[in-house]
Amino acid sequence: MNRLDGCLLVCLFPLLYCCPFANTLESNKLFNVQQQLIRSNPSSIASSAMDHHSKPFSGIKKDIHGRLQCYKQDWVGALCSGARILAPTAYIFFASALPVIAFGEQLNSFTDGTLSSVETLTSTAICGIIHAIFGGQPLLILGVAEPTVIMYNYLYGFAKGRSELGKELFLAWAGWVCFWTAIMLCVLSILNACTLITRFTRVAGELFGMLISVLFMQEAVRGVISEFRVPKGENNKSEGNQFHWLYMNGLLAVIFSFGVLITSMKSRGARSWRYGTGWLRSFIADYGVPLMVLVWTAISYAKPSQLPSQVPRRLFCPLPWEAGSLSHWTVIKDMVKVPGVHVLTAMVPAMMIAALYFFDHSVAAQMAQQKEFNLKNPSAYHYDVFLLGLMTLMCGLIGVPPSNGVLPQSPMHTRSLSVLKRQMMRKKMVECAKEGIKLEASNSEIFGRMHAVFVEMEPHPNRLVDKELENLKEVVMNGDDGDATGKFDPERHIEAYLPVRVNEQRVTNLLQSILVGFAVFAIPAIRMIPTSVLWGYFAYMSIDSLPGNQFWERLLLFFIPAGRRFKVLESVHASYVESVPFKYITMFTVFQVVYFLICYGITWIPTGGILFPLPFFLLIPIREHFLPKLFPHEHLQELDASEYEEYIGRPVQSMSLSRKEGSGEDHMENDFKIDSAEILDELTTRRGELKLRSSFNDRQFDEVTTRRGKLRQRSSFNDRFRVNADKAMTPRGELKLRSSFNDRLLHLGMSEMN
Amino acid sequence: MNRLDGCLLVCLFPLLYCCPFANTLESNKLFNVQQQLIRSNPSSIASSAMDHHSKPFSGIKKDIHGRLQCYKQDWVGALCSGARILAPTAYIFFASALPVIAFGEQLNSFTDGTLSSVETLTSTAICGIIHAIFGGQPLLILGVAEPTVIMYNYLYGFAKGRSELGKELFLAWAGWVCFWTAIMLCVLSILNACTLITRFTRVAGELFGMLISVLFMQEAVRGVISEFRVPKGENNKSEGNQFHWLYMNGLLAVIFSFGVLITSMKSRGARSWRYGTGWLRSFIADYGVPLMVLVWTAISYAKPSQLPSQVPRRLFCPLPWEAGSLSHWTVIKDMVKVPGVHVLTAMVPAMMIAALYFFDHSVAAQMAQQKEFNLKNPSAYHYDVFLLGLMTLMCGLIGVPPSNGVLPQSPMHTRSLSVLKRQMMRKKMVECAKEGIKLEASNSEIFGRMHAVFVEMEPHPNRLVDKELENLKEVVMNGDDGDATGKFDPERHIEAYLPVRVNEQRVTNLLQSILVGFAVFAIPAIRMIPTSVLWGYFAYMSIDSLPGNQFWERLLLFFIPAGRRFKVLESVHASYVESVPFKYITMFTVFQVVYFLICYGITWIPTGGILFPLPFFLLIPIREHFLPKLFPHEHLQELDASEYEEYIGRPVQSMSLSRKEGSGEDHMENDFKIDSAEILDELTTRRGELKLRSSFNDRQFDEVTTRRGKLRQRSSFNDRFRVNADKAMTPRGELKLRSSFNDRLLHLGMSEMN
Repeated sequence: MNRLDGCLLVCLFPLLYCCPFANTLESNKLFNVQQQLIRSNPSSIASSAMDHHSKPFSGIKKDIHGRLQCYKQDWVGALCSGARILAPTAYIFFASALPVIAFGEQLNSFTDGTLSSVETLTSTAICGIIHAIFGGQPLLILGVAEPTVIMYNYLYGFAKGRSELGKELFLAWAGWVCFWTAIMLCVLSILNACTLITRFTRVAGELFGMLISVLFMQEAVRGVISEFRVPKGENNKSEGNQFHWLYMNGLLAVIFSFGVLITSMKSRGARSWRYGTGWLRSFIADYGVPLMVLVWTAISYAKPSQLPSQVPRRLFCPLPWEAGSLSHWTVIKDMVKVPGVHVLTAMVPAMMIAALYFFDHSVAAQMAQQKEFNLKNPSAYHYDVFLLGLMTLMCGLIGVPPSNGVLPQSPMHTRSLSVLKRQMMRKKMVECAKEGIKLEASNSEIFGRMHAVFVEMEPHPNRLVDKELENLKEVVMNGDDGDATGKFDPERHIEAYLPVRVNEQRVTNLLQSILVGFAVFAIPAIRMIPTSVLWGYFAYMSIDSLPGNQFWERLLLFFIPAGRRFKVLESVHASYVESVPFKYITMFTVFQVVYFLICYGITWIPTGGILFPLPFFLLIPIREHFLPKLFPHEHLQELDASEYEEYIGRPVQSMSLSRKEGSGEDHMENDFKIDSAEILDELTTRRGELKLRSSFNDRQFDEVTTRRGKLRQRSSFNDRFRVNADKAMTPRGELKLRSSFNDRLLHLGMSEMN
Repeated sequence: MNRLDGCLLVCLFPLLYCCPFANTLESNKLFNVQQQLIRSNPSSIASSAMDHHSKPFSGIKKDIHGRLQCYKQDWVGALCSGARILAPTAYIFFASALPVIAFGEQLNSFTDGTLSSVETLTSTAICGIIHAIFGGQPLLILGVAEPTVIMYNYLYGFAKGRSELGKELFLAWAGWVCFWTAIMLCVLSILNACTLITRFTRVAGELFGMLISVLFMQEAVRGVISEFRVPKGENNKSEGNQFHWLYMNGLLAVIFSFGVLITSMKSRGARSWRYGTGWLRSFIADYGVPLMVLVWTAISYAKPSQLPSQVPRRLFCPLPWEAGSLSHWTVIKDMVKVPGVHVLTAMVPAMMIAALYFFDHSVAAQMAQQKEFNLKNPSAYHYDVFLLGLMTLMCGLIGVPPSNGVLPQSPMHTRSLSVLKRQMMRKKMVECAKEGIKLEASNSEIFGRMHAVFVEMEPHPNRLVDKELENLKEVVMNGDDGDATGKFDPERHIEAYLPVRVNEQRVTNLLQSILVGFAVFAIPAIRMIPTSVLWGYFAYMSIDSLPGNQFWERLLLFFIPAGRRFKVLESVHASYVESVPFKYITMFTVFQVVYFLICYGITWIPTGGILFPLPFFLLIPIREHFLPKLFPHEHLQELDASEYEEYIGRPVQSMSLSRKEGSGEDHMENDFKIDSAEILDELTTRRGELKLRSSFNDRQFDEVTTRRGKLRQRSSFNDRFRVNADKAMTPRGELKLRSSFNDRLLHLGMSEMN
């Protein structure tokens, strides 16, 4: 680590100063975690780790060079998909626009109307378009996120409390904050500081996630309670604010918010419902939440005519073409009016925001490029942070809150593009294979054609493709055995053995950003949404982000009496449950709870709350120096693992039941349908992390053969994908109907007989 | 079948006349179904089948004789349990009182306040006390049930519409209806007609259950809508009936009814929750619904003081000591005022009610005495119907609606007593075994002592006990093998191999009836319940009765696309799903839907609706003569099976996961806790039927060995109980942690090695 980096760290996080930098980094306990992170995305982080010792700008240069190679393909590639590209576009648009609107409304109430959905949508659209065209990694989705909103809340509180700033100069001062943030971000990227994100472990990330989740829930509860009261700044003597209308508004708010919460949560799992056809279930799963907002908004209009117009209360944001919205395009003029001392005070929040953005943006980019997605284009961490700095500056100057890379939308984006690519490749390869079978070509010919089609669609290095297609080759080649069970079935085997590929391009990101831009003009429609629907949506966001957060899962563990813990082992569960003694799980969780309460407490301090990200950075030295003294190394690593590792308790293949063969007629087995998206749904956490799944015995096996210290072999995403699809079918494509219990008896019987 | 029976059938169900009686009965298609029913309860139905050819009164005489033998024990036996007997008493009291209150409120709105919860509670209490003391089968629970309420609705509609009767003579005319009903019931029982219930197959029972369920839901929806309107018979100009108060009342009703519905449904499954200690979960599962009524009633009082007292609307029923309630104790005086023609018209509804009661009472009694409960005391079908006749007469004379045997409370009662008995026996036997081990007695000595304790507590015939304790004996005797896995562990093995016994006595039934009687005096408290809470409760009763109803389950099947049907096979499912071709499932279900719509349509006819039970009796000849022409015999029998037979799709033992042995420390396995009640919960349908569970392969095996026509061997309830408890533990009492998938691989590997 060079000296400049050290200086920067000192400047950014003074509290980190106590930990030794420079050459001791390699020797510290976190090295393993870093190694894992590097392994999970070798092309990107590892290369930046190497850049690390080289001179300023080298990372950015390399990123630009790498992305320029494929820049043309980023646009041309999308054209091949034609209109199908609109499906992921719409999917990401809704996933990204709704929270931005919600955060806008939150900002509106925090800042007494100075900022609103108009500004958040504008910022998201402009930054999104810039990033889609000029950005490094086009899979990364940008948007105004909750940390920004919280920060702006504190900024407003600070500015309003100072007579020399006041409400008038709030945006100008925030402009200065953005200015300093931008400088810091640019410096960080120029100094190739991206390896720093590896020092941020799971414990910090999950604590932060939990804090956001609790703040969402707090917002939801506060919101519903506020519906029973006279709105801020309104006359409480007016006709519409009489007790009975207020109480009625409150009751409606309870109904709408719980309605949105419950129906959204139900619709999220639609893909695995029993009922309804596939496209309907997919549609509900993909668009359920915006759909529910729509449905409940419609229901809110089914009110008797006697109700006054204020009941139920609806979103309030100025129209984009009204004076209020137009004024702050000229914020830059006011920036000179900010007193010199406050130009400097702006550096404190800027430090916090820069640190938050630096980590958030890089982590979101990393999650969008997880190794299992098999991306072919290079990453651009350094360049993207640099561009983020420029965009933050621009947002500050035009008086809108800045955007940064968002979770879980970024990995959702990659995932939806991988499903699209899969469908397209599968179709072409099946066609090609069927044609080959029709022409009675030899198996190696058929495979040769398929190989060619595959390479044509996704020009990866040959060596890699050969390895990935190995399984498929095996199946095709064994087709002549004469044994019916080994026969090659194009439809099924291609689905099962097709490697994961992502449609990497810039069009979806650009289109969805443009759509967000158009949403600004839909403000008159957006204003029809009742506020209570948003409170329900906040509660939904809060609850939805919890599963997959190991801190939360460990908290729940405390409420399970010892005699019932087998229920956890029965279902799919995180790996630490089996590998870490309960005593250490308890200690670690208690530590997190205490730390969480401190963080949460800080957010309640009126102006000091602006420092709320500090404890998270403090966690880095604590994790490096203090925790290893309390916990054995291997348990700490398991509890604070960089990957979400899961064990399958109740094995997936128990879906295979038993059935007498040849019992013809139109019984129920028919054909078996689980689409790729459904399996992908199960394989990611709510944050978009890909889960590493293995059954416990696999792991034992690994442990036995490799011993601690050596690199454990992990099944790749694709293997897991294939295994899931494969286990449920016999080689003839029938649904396996064999109960594992009876199989076991059978085997037992057989082995006894032997 | 003798001639008197034939006459009676003609008199009761003229439409059945078309089917051949007398000696052709044995030859008809239903014989198999009957046989199954007889098998499932050999001691009772078979004996009545034999009585069948004997002279009048013989059944009643035999019943009285049989019950007199154990009458003293029925009282003395309860004393042994001491205070513990209060647990099942409280459980059944709440399960039985709440619906009676709800039906009372329903009657109140149907009959413009003539009858209310006061009368339904009174009838339930009086009939319950009489039955507990003088009844034949004390496990049977009596109460005013929904069919009675519906019938009284039509009776009131008829009486009100006739000027010669009117509201004043409604109760007197209803008295005549009860009079005729009583005569018919007594005649039926005197003629030993109890075998007739075997002609009532699953299709009719489930259709009836579905109708009740839909009527409940209709009542709930109607109720919630009515909350938005001015209550019947009130001045809509009054202050409390202004639009905004009405609308507010409606909104509160929506919140309360959905609140009760959702929380009740959640609490029902509490026993299998992950979280919370055992007693808390049991408490919530047993008393969740009344608890939720209480909680939501309490919430309804957390209203601002500005609300008028009518918001939210609460139950309206007169206090038992008010004039309105006292008047109809003297209904008998008015009965002479009923015109002669209407004394005769009363015979039509009487026929319907008699038929309904006859079947309902016998089926409830039968469900309370299912073979798997191993009851030792004889049944008393004939005598109980006779007593029901007398009680119906009495209820008619004092102007309260009559009570009859209720589902699912009756089997719930037996079940709760079996859990109680189990706990007691287990405790004593474990003590005895431990004492033996301490004294280093030989294994046979220990078993001898345990055997003695068992027989002392439950004097069953020796031969039977020996057979039932065979498994336990085996475990005890093998304790000296030196092999640790075979070691006898009192706690665990006794729990696993203890046969099911029920604490048969009259005290719980008597006490709970007395409690219902006291509830009459709690009317002032009951009046605090908001009406909307009751609508939620009706919706809960409607939805809760559906699972286990095969008609409903088959309806749902239509909404599962063919490619997703494996999801049904994956989970526990009824046997017909695997054994009947989908074509026949569809045909049968469409037939039921059409028939159901006819039945439901009839209930909407103002006065003719009184004949709504007719289509159900019509189903008997249809099932006997028409359906066999459309469906192959074996499929029809499977679809219309007398027992709820289930297959385990996802096997229960996949809870057994894998775990390296000897990996000490305080990991999560600890001890494993599933209490008996939880397993029993899973093993009964919502109606209280015990499910016959077997995995598909077991069945195939049976089929192969016995061929069609022979009696299939079925695992008894106890075997299944034991298997469930046993599978999850290793012989050393550890929770098995072995994934079945890996086991399979292991076995495969082993057998290949061999």
